[in-house]
Amino acid sequence: MMANASETTVFTKEDLLEHWQGHRRLTRLVIEAFPEDKIFTFTLGGMRPFGEMAFELLKMTIPIANGVATGKWEGSKRTAPSSKAELLKLWDEDTAALNAVWPTIPAPRFAETDKAFGQWECTGAAAILYGLDNEIHHRGQAYVYLRSLGITPPSFWDGRK
Amino acid sequence: MMANASETTVFTKEDLLEHWQGHRRLTRLVIEAFPEDKIFTFTLGGMRPFGEMAFELLKMTIPIANGVATGKWEGSKRTAPSSKAELLKLWDEDTAALNAVWPTIPAPRFAETDKAFGQWECTGAAAILYGLDNEIHHRGQAYVYLRSLGITPPSFWDGRK
Repeated sequence: MMANASETTVFTKEDLLEHWQGHRRLTRLVIEAFPEDKIFTFTLGGMRPFGEMAFELLKMTIPIANGVATGKWEGSKRTAPSSKAELLKLWDEDTAALNAVWPTIPAPRFAETDKAFGQWECTGAAAILYGLDNEIHHRGQAYVYLRSLGITPPSFWDGRK
Repeated sequence: MMANASETTVFTKEDLLEHWQGHRRLTRLVIEAFPEDKIFTFTLGGMRPFGEMAFELLKMTIPIANGVATGKWEGSKRTAPSSKAELLKLWDEDTAALNAVWPTIPAPRFAETDKAFGQWECTGAAAILYGLDNEIHHRGQAYVYLRSLGITPPSFWDGRK
């Protein structure tokens, strides 16, 4: 996964931030779509409620971005939110924090291999995409939860500017 | 979303193909995990069975890759598979076809804005990521279907080499 100058650029640093924040805007709409009394309780197939999945995303986003930026991989010390309003507040804090940390990521870190959280050997770009893919994956599950609750989820395009 | 030489490369053409094929390997495992009598019938919340979602992915992958490669956006003319074996056969055909078309994509096409399928104005990279994100989204839904059927889905890492 090492990039070198002879390879084709398909995606820039700025593209990747906007792509992630676009997905995060859609996930925020999905959080909003859940009824307060279902987001931390409703489950299917023995899976976690979406509120817990969203908290997992909140524990990953900034620690991943910080790890890529600095090489220091520190887990989140956040405590789990217990209301939708609290979840949305943390979500918005991370939106601003992600925008703030992004410009501090040194360019070579995206292609550099590191050991994320002391465990996963991959490039910075791969660590970020893992976080993003995990978000899309769990949000897809939230769509099934919402549909099963009789709620129409936001369109897949709704996060785009 | 236009890349220019002063921007940071975070992801190369080769990275993007491997990232997509890694996800496609995981989706193939998810198709395999469904019982034959459930893949085209089991649903939750009024959504489509996963066999239909997987066919949607099959109708997008090569048409998107061809569109980015050539600027010609032609929809798929495939007929829907009616068995798991047929679905897996089409999946494997696309794996080879995607590897074959990829080297023919001219480098500037990834950053160039085009009108995908005459409708969606975006860069080549964004069109490809839309296909990939849509795959992750629907595969996440398949995980809920499998869990609801009492089947343990493959691990999210299983598509990686």
